[in-house]
Amino acid sequence: MQPSGTDFARALPQLAADILLRVRRHGPRVHCITNTVAQELTANVLLAVNALPSMTIAAAEIAAFADRADSLLVNLGTLDEERRAAVGIALDRADEKRMPWVLDPVLIDVSAPRAAFARTLLDRGPAAIRLNAREFAALAETAPDTAALARFASERHCAIGLTGETDDVADATRRVRIANGHALMARITAMGCAASALVAACLAVEKDAFLASASALLIFGVAGEIAGEEAQGPGSFATAFLDALYELDAGEIADRAEVE
Amino acid sequence: MQPSGTDFARALPQLAADILLRVRRHGPRVHCITNTVAQELTANVLLAVNALPSMTIAAAEIAAFADRADSLLVNLGTLDEERRAAVGIALDRADEKRMPWVLDPVLIDVSAPRAAFARTLLDRGPAAIRLNAREFAALAETAPDTAALARFASERHCAIGLTGETDDVADATRRVRIANGHALMARITAMGCAASALVAACLAVEKDAFLASASALLIFGVAGEIAGEEAQGPGSFATAFLDALYELDAGEIADRAEVE
Amino acid sequence: MQPSGTDFARALPQLAADILLRVRRHGPRVHCITNTVAQELTANVLLAVNALPSMTIAAAEIAAFADRADSLLVNLGTLDEERRAAVGIALDRADEKRMPWVLDPVLIDVSAPRAAFARTLLDRGPAAIRLNAREFAALAETAPDTAALARFASERHCAIGLTGETDDVADATRRVRIANGHALMARITAMGCAASALVAACLAVEKDAFLASASALLIFGVAGEIAGEEAQGPGSFATAFLDALYELDAGEIADRAEVE
Repeated sequence: MQPSGTDFARALPQLAADILLRVRRHGPRVHCITNTVAQELTANVLLAVNALPSMTIAAAEIAAFADRADSLLVNLGTLDEERRAAVGIALDRADEKRMPWVLDPVLIDVSAPRAAFARTLLDRGPAAIRLNAREFAALAETAPDTAALARFASERHCAIGLTGETDDVADATRRVRIANGHALMARITAMGCAASALVAACLAVEKDAFLASASALLIFGVAGEIAGEEAQGPGSFATAFLDALYELDAGEIADRAEVE
Repeated sequence: MQPSGTDFARALPQLAADILLRVRRHGPRVHCITNTVAQELTANVLLAVNALPSMTIAAAEIAAFADRADSLLVNLGTLDEERRAAVGIALDRADEKRMPWVLDPVLIDVSAPRAAFARTLLDRGPAAIRLNAREFAALAETAPDTAALARFASERHCAIGLTGETDDVADATRRVRIANGHALMARITAMGCAASALVAACLAVEKDAFLASASALLIFGVAGEIAGEEAQGPGSFATAFLDALYELDAGEIADRAEVE
Repeated sequence: MQPSGTDFARALPQLAADILLRVRRHGPRVHCITNTVAQELTANVLLAVNALPSMTIAAAEIAAFADRADSLLVNLGTLDEERRAAVGIALDRADEKRMPWVLDPVLIDVSAPRAAFARTLLDRGPAAIRLNAREFAALAETAPDTAALARFASERHCAIGLTGETDDVADATRRVRIANGHALMARITAMGCAASALVAACLAVEKDAFLASASALLIFGVAGEIAGEEAQGPGSFATAFLDALYELDAGEIADRAEVE
């Protein structure tokens, strides 16, 4: 049994380090249906932790890629017809083989058809959803306070990772807040998208979606913090971030974790 | 009233620094219809100056993104059917809300159908056009000398930013030449595309398209020069360029500007 | 006449340095039909050696781009309908003007329709094929041992560059093994794709496809080795790799080459 509440917060750094180790050891395959802007950084974030990304969205091929994957990312950025079709096929395969998948409803607050599509995907049972406050409001049609997060997670039987200046992770019964990260993370495109991919990588080795989500966001935030200390701007930040993620160890996670 | 001729050249560094400050303060939304190769760098250049990029080209969504944008970039690289359709929809919205937009007619000197499409876009009233000498020749069907630039800008009621070893910016009555920049800028893909995006960001906070274009190209060139001094090759140049753009201040622009 | 066997291995560093010089001097145009994930790195690798990349896959434009290119890359990653159509048109032009082209059958071991498409392309006469062991097994329907490489190269009248911990290059009568490279090359997405693009750049200035392939892979491996010594992780590796490729000289190639 896992610890809950304050105990969970205290235990998270070690649990996250353990999950990172499992990702590095097993090298899970993560198929990513993601937007064209985020593909390269997403692939490099996954490779930095020894996960194996694939990215095709072609209708003729997506089933084969989904079939061999250990987890799936469904990111709704640059959502065109080809991506919509790919999502449908990939989720059918995920369903059949009970593969966990992560929903990242990018910018659904801007586009009504995208928000409508995202809501249909809730019925397909994402294990975890990673989004920001505006996207949560558009998805759940309510403000993103603590109670709303828990209610939504409970209704949808999933973990929610709400990222921003601090990150809130919730499921039906648990919640944790992570205060790591760095301001430059908002100055590089696709960092949120890449965080969602890391959630997917963690889900491939950890069935508890709340724990996988919290671990991924803690790892991501700590790597961001380390990178931020070395960076002189967003260019060197991006470089340092991949290096930090690659090198990250249990000691650094424990030392830097700001979890409650 | 703004200064003209030599006076304008002398005033540009301060005007550009002021525009950069406004971009950083207001964080304008710039919707980019751009090629797949340039998307990541373009987004990161915009984020480095605190502008907010979006990149979708899906027909179902482009209107919503254009509606909330403060300016628009229409870049013709990797021009497929989806992009052509997106351009049409986005320009209709731009027209309706009088949103300024920038045309970047990438490589129209190579592709006749792309050049023909670019010429139809001239009738849609771009505020500014950013291109190189070969692209200008293909668009205007004349050699890119000073008189031709002015004539074309006058006929089309827009600002022209012609980039190369030196950059020439012109509108119907004004011209300025900017000699900043670095040879490594040609060794990184999509730098021209990203420069056009920066013109769009400046247009979002400055209605005078000549001033916005000249400012963007001066800022871009000075950042390139700073990056070039630190870089050991194109890899470290790209990193240093984003850092330089992020950190750039009025003093550096004034010290380094080579404008006449 | 070129040296063969051990003599060729001994001569390769100087031959590769000479080809690199020719690429830098002539700046060949390389049209790349490649996957969306690999486009930016591929373009930057080509630009680092002064080759000129283009990347469109639009049916209306691909012929014009192929017509002015000096060589062509056909990479099957993220293979959708648009890419399939583009490949057909580009290969017709390549055929007509006798332009050399490189096949990179990315991940055909995962996707049966992609593997079938790759096999149809063999009849279109690639000058060189760059792939890994699993992809070779899927393409040639046999294990990738030395005899199988030579047989396949002989039947298909092309050079094969099989990359992995060591790289094996073969044609009907020659073979060479290159042991350069660095473990971080597998931690950055699209390095294999970019290596194939460098083969295409070398083919543009060197008709002997075996020599062009071996040279490209040696250059790539040596640059990777230099970058690996400076890098602290995959982020700084990617940066250092482009710098190393840009700066690489005959002395470094000769000093570091591990060829047999």
